[in-house]
Amino acid sequence: MARGCVAVIDTTFARVNMGDIALPVLEKRLPGYEIRRITVPGIKDLPGAAKRMLDSGCDAAITLGWVGMREADKLSYLAMSIGLIMVEILTGKILLDVTVHEDEAPGDPERLREITVDRVVKHAENLALMLRRGPDALVKYAGKGLRQGYEHAGELK
Amino acid sequence: MARGCVAVIDTTFARVNMGDIALPVLEKRLPGYEIRRITVPGIKDLPGAAKRMLDSGCDAAITLGWVGMREADKLSYLAMSIGLIMVEILTGKILLDVTVHEDEAPGDPERLREITVDRVVKHAENLALMLRRGPDALVKYAGKGLRQGYEHAGELK
Amino acid sequence: MARGCVAVIDTTFARVNMGDIALPVLEKRLPGYEIRRITVPGIKDLPGAAKRMLDSGCDAAITLGWVGMREADKLSYLAMSIGLIMVEILTGKILLDVTVHEDEAPGDPERLREITVDRVVKHAENLALMLRRGPDALVKYAGKGLRQGYEHAGELK
Amino acid sequence: MARGCVAVIDTTFARVNMGDIALPVLEKRLPGYEIRRITVPGIKDLPGAAKRMLDSGCDAAITLGWVGMREADKLSYLAMSIGLIMVEILTGKILLDVTVHEDEAPGDPERLREITVDRVVKHAENLALMLRRGPDALVKYAGKGLRQGYEHAGELK
Amino acid sequence: MARGCVAVIDTTFARVNMGDIALPVLEKRLPGYEIRRITVPGIKDLPGAAKRMLDSGCDAAITLGWVGMREADKLSYLAMSIGLIMVEILTGKILLDVTVHEDEAPGDPERLREITVDRVVKHAENLALMLRRGPDALVKYAGKGLRQGYEHAGELK
Repeated sequence: MARGCVAVIDTTFARVNMGDIALPVLEKRLPGYEIRRITVPGIKDLPGAAKRMLDSGCDAAITLGWVGMREADKLSYLAMSIGLIMVEILTGKILLDVTVHEDEAPGDPERLREITVDRVVKHAENLALMLRRGPDALVKYAGKGLRQGYEHAGELK
Repeated sequence: MARGCVAVIDTTFARVNMGDIALPVLEKRLPGYEIRRITVPGIKDLPGAAKRMLDSGCDAAITLGWVGMREADKLSYLAMSIGLIMVEILTGKILLDVTVHEDEAPGDPERLREITVDRVVKHAENLALMLRRGPDALVKYAGKGLRQGYEHAGELK
Repeated sequence: MARGCVAVIDTTFARVNMGDIALPVLEKRLPGYEIRRITVPGIKDLPGAAKRMLDSGCDAAITLGWVGMREADKLSYLAMSIGLIMVEILTGKILLDVTVHEDEAPGDPERLREITVDRVVKHAENLALMLRRGPDALVKYAGKGLRQGYEHAGELK
Repeated sequence: MARGCVAVIDTTFARVNMGDIALPVLEKRLPGYEIRRITVPGIKDLPGAAKRMLDSGCDAAITLGWVGMREADKLSYLAMSIGLIMVEILTGKILLDVTVHEDEAPGDPERLREITVDRVVKHAENLALMLRRGPDALVKYAGKGLRQGYEHAGELK
Repeated sequence: MARGCVAVIDTTFARVNMGDIALPVLEKRLPGYEIRRITVPGIKDLPGAAKRMLDSGCDAAITLGWVGMREADKLSYLAMSIGLIMVEILTGKILLDVTVHEDEAPGDPERLREITVDRVVKHAENLALMLRRGPDALVKYAGKGLRQGYEHAGELK
């Protein structure tokens, strides 16, 4: 029997296969866990899918979203964020939300891919750490200005 | 007895009969399913209508919205999106949200109609696929940069 | 005994007596229904009032709001819209939301009054139609580009 | 025993003692009522405090908020407004929300104080009226263009 | 046995160790209380974490967030704020939300650190005061224009 279950949910809208990046990290860092992967069309479908996966027995979820450059995409990002937070509040389970915004590197697909890989890997590691070591696992990094997708900003002295 | 029930909900505000586009796709792709169609005035009426249809026995719903160009329309889009996500969270059922924004092709009604048809058809197919094959049906398209209403953006290499 | 009950809720902030416009339409179109009218100060008071009226036995409600021109008014409109949608989701009843924005006809009170009258009348008729004939009463108008307060935009061919 | 209980909740952020303005109005207009006053740091603390006061037995509440001029303050105003509406929906009780925005009279503290006093007094009177006379007490003012903090805008003819 | 429990939740995104600032203030002002500290990646993780801490027995929580300068950060701030307010509404417990925005002192890390320290200390003291003396502890500061991170704005005369 698995020690636990983590859901990985990404989208067909994304231009990078974000689930494929998260999967090996979670498998390595969470031995004995079952990793269930599903894919939905776009970011507004993530909260409902996460709720269904958590209700069906998963202990935690990581959602992997990709946000376009139009104003409507920004509003969708806001709606998604509120929805994901409501899912976390209603289920009492950890739901880590990873989002890449296309305007983080306009016209530079290579850089956008780099940002995506780094962000997904680091947040998959964050999730694994919180699941294995408990809610105070990240206390030692508090205020360190950690960044995912960029160099760490560091602590202000 | 029907194998399942899908609700199709569109608006009188839309300038394209979006329900008429979704209906034949769903009937073809979901043989044996009952398709229930209703129409509401505008996008802010979609979440409540979807909740009622899902509560009355439908297994899934697709909402078809049309967003005007005024600032108030954008705010209504945001409220609608939050509402639809809450319905999906509260019911545990799939609610696929298809929206066309008038400012996607200002002054070009032909193009706007094209976008609408393509988006509705593709999302109706998405919904059918998820219902027939289960939540991991779309995993093979993860990160492919799929677009509805436009050419696929493709995967970043 | 009444065949049903509809709540009409408007505001003291509005510059047109919107309830007085909705009332005769509902009385004419919904013979045998009890129409209960209340008034609240402003748009942010509408969702709570609608919830109380629906909880106290009304089958449906129509809210009549008036939005000022300041940025704060737009944010209040958004909060109101989210609230009204939540009421509709939580009660499972029809709540039709009619809103006039002062910036629809800045400096032209006569036009603003015209927009208001037309919008309230048409939406009161929409509500009556949905209550008498059921949720598919508006299917024949789907995608017709219907507008309230303006000329119909029409269907794109 | 008191005939009822009303909660008055203001903030330490405000630059006018708004609770002190509301209190005598409520005491005069609601003889026999218990008025419970509390103060919280800022506007985002108002919904939670209102919920606790209503849950602990109050029949209604009036919240008195003060919004700063930064973009973050506007977003906080939106979050607060959504929260207050949710409290009203969840409790079924009247929660009247009075807010002053610093940008209503930038650089003119005297005018800002005037706006505040007028707005708080008028809304405290609104609340008292609705509590004593019931939900249709304000119908006679429907569409009159009433303003709090400014001269009444009046009805459009 | 502890007299009560307070949760302190900060982030790895912050560039100042905000939890380390809050902790000694709470320990000094709330003798006999258990202080439980956890850290999450970013501000959107705060509401879910606060809900879990309050559900697991804490009487109150203080969340310490740091908001970046991008548009997406502002939207995340809004989603976080709505989420924290919902947690407070749903649990009936005090959740004090402390947020620093990077654009409060762009390019001036020393000033940003000062703002952070002052804001965290003052709000930790606010929380302690409300817990020890009850909900009316802050009434004497109502309308005083108190600021955290800046000089008090003062009362308008």
